[in-house]
Amino acid sequence: MMDRRKWLQLAGLGTGVSMLPSFGMAEQKQYYALAAGKTILFQGDSITDAGRNRETEGPNIPRGLGGGYVYQIVSSLLKANPDMDFQCYNRGISGNKVFQLADRWQADCIDIKPDVLSILIGVNDYWHVLGGNYDGTLEIYTNDLKKLLSETLEKLQKVKLIIGEPFIVKGGKAIDERWYPDFAGYQKAAKDIAKEFNAGFVPYQAYFDKALEKAPVSYWCPDGVHPSIAGGALMAEAWLNTFKKM
Amino acid sequence: MMDRRKWLQLAGLGTGVSMLPSFGMAEQKQYYALAAGKTILFQGDSITDAGRNRETEGPNIPRGLGGGYVYQIVSSLLKANPDMDFQCYNRGISGNKVFQLADRWQADCIDIKPDVLSILIGVNDYWHVLGGNYDGTLEIYTNDLKKLLSETLEKLQKVKLIIGEPFIVKGGKAIDERWYPDFAGYQKAAKDIAKEFNAGFVPYQAYFDKALEKAPVSYWCPDGVHPSIAGGALMAEAWLNTFKKM
Repeated sequence: MMDRRKWLQLAGLGTGVSMLPSFGMAEQKQYYALAAGKTILFQGDSITDAGRNRETEGPNIPRGLGGGYVYQIVSSLLKANPDMDFQCYNRGISGNKVFQLADRWQADCIDIKPDVLSILIGVNDYWHVLGGNYDGTLEIYTNDLKKLLSETLEKLQKVKLIIGEPFIVKGGKAIDERWYPDFAGYQKAAKDIAKEFNAGFVPYQAYFDKALEKAPVSYWCPDGVHPSIAGGALMAEAWLNTFKKM
Repeated sequence: MMDRRKWLQLAGLGTGVSMLPSFGMAEQKQYYALAAGKTILFQGDSITDAGRNRETEGPNIPRGLGGGYVYQIVSSLLKANPDMDFQCYNRGISGNKVFQLADRWQADCIDIKPDVLSILIGVNDYWHVLGGNYDGTLEIYTNDLKKLLSETLEKLQKVKLIIGEPFIVKGGKAIDERWYPDFAGYQKAAKDIAKEFNAGFVPYQAYFDKALEKAPVSYWCPDGVHPSIAGGALMAEAWLNTFKKM
């Protein structure tokens, strides 16, 4: 897949605004190996959705990006790389499991023709089983996700994939002993699938685990599933770290 | 006023997550001289409002922070300073001029008891005159803003003020020759008032002027008044640069 990789020098805004002091944003020039072009699609469940306005179809519109990690990623990317003309879409929908992504995939992925496709899915595939309203298994999750990605690559042969690790934050109100150790199987599956499909992998769990050394779960992710604004910012950092290494 | 200043060492998250790579966020320890405590209130017009849910009263809630620079500031602040327990409120309302802030000041400022009060106001004080539906003048803007700040300091003696420079971005759809040179008077007034009241001053105009060297006005602020998500991120950088020097 190296033929469609190209090392692009993405000048950080700092180059143009170098006389101004800077804080909290990348200033120095950043180098990425970007798979392809400028259209980035974020897919997933409520963590991705984050209250976005689902009537907003166009890219880069705040209300259409929701109030979570997607907004924060897009904000950082657009500011730091004005010459890239990134076009970013959020199509996460609360409650989704893998098969529900598949049900809406043509309209909510293929038709958008993303150059980069970021997927974070899996917490509901286990959570809804715990809740007694879904008969899923780890095998179903694994097979459904592989099938979805295979079909995606058939239709979008040049798309670059980013798989987010499903995560739970210890001590959150919705997290109890029933999550351990089974949920780790879903995390391992996501990581293995990322490797198999040559996708970038975002290790969210490690970021949240480390963050708990600085502030309690209520600060980062009160129920252990849905991040706060601080948790969203943490996820954005994790995602960007994966993206810049691709 | 030095007696209520205290140099606080705010450890960036990088301290706790130093094994993880970082991008787009401040990593090194940051030092601020913070006036007071942890409650930060953002006040202003539509640029501050940015589509926030006005039913959301509590702090740090994404939908209550809107989709503009306030969200981006809060996101950066909370992630980088988990030990500070910042409580951030947005009470901007679209269309507001200074006198309209004054009309709702008790509920939307004094009662919140901010330690840091950030105000960005002024573009409507001129724009609505151009539109023919407001009889304001530069003198009214100046006097109203001084009066508002004086009354604020009487009731909140320890509050630290941050005044944002009203700005217009050249080439935006709502910006024509009628804005020049008169609007510059409002900008100078805001700057002078910031000095008079010992407030931090955020020079937004310089950031947008510089940013135009990297991408067109449509990228940062299509109508010249309301920033895009990229423009909001630029404002957040500007604000944080002022904040960290206070």
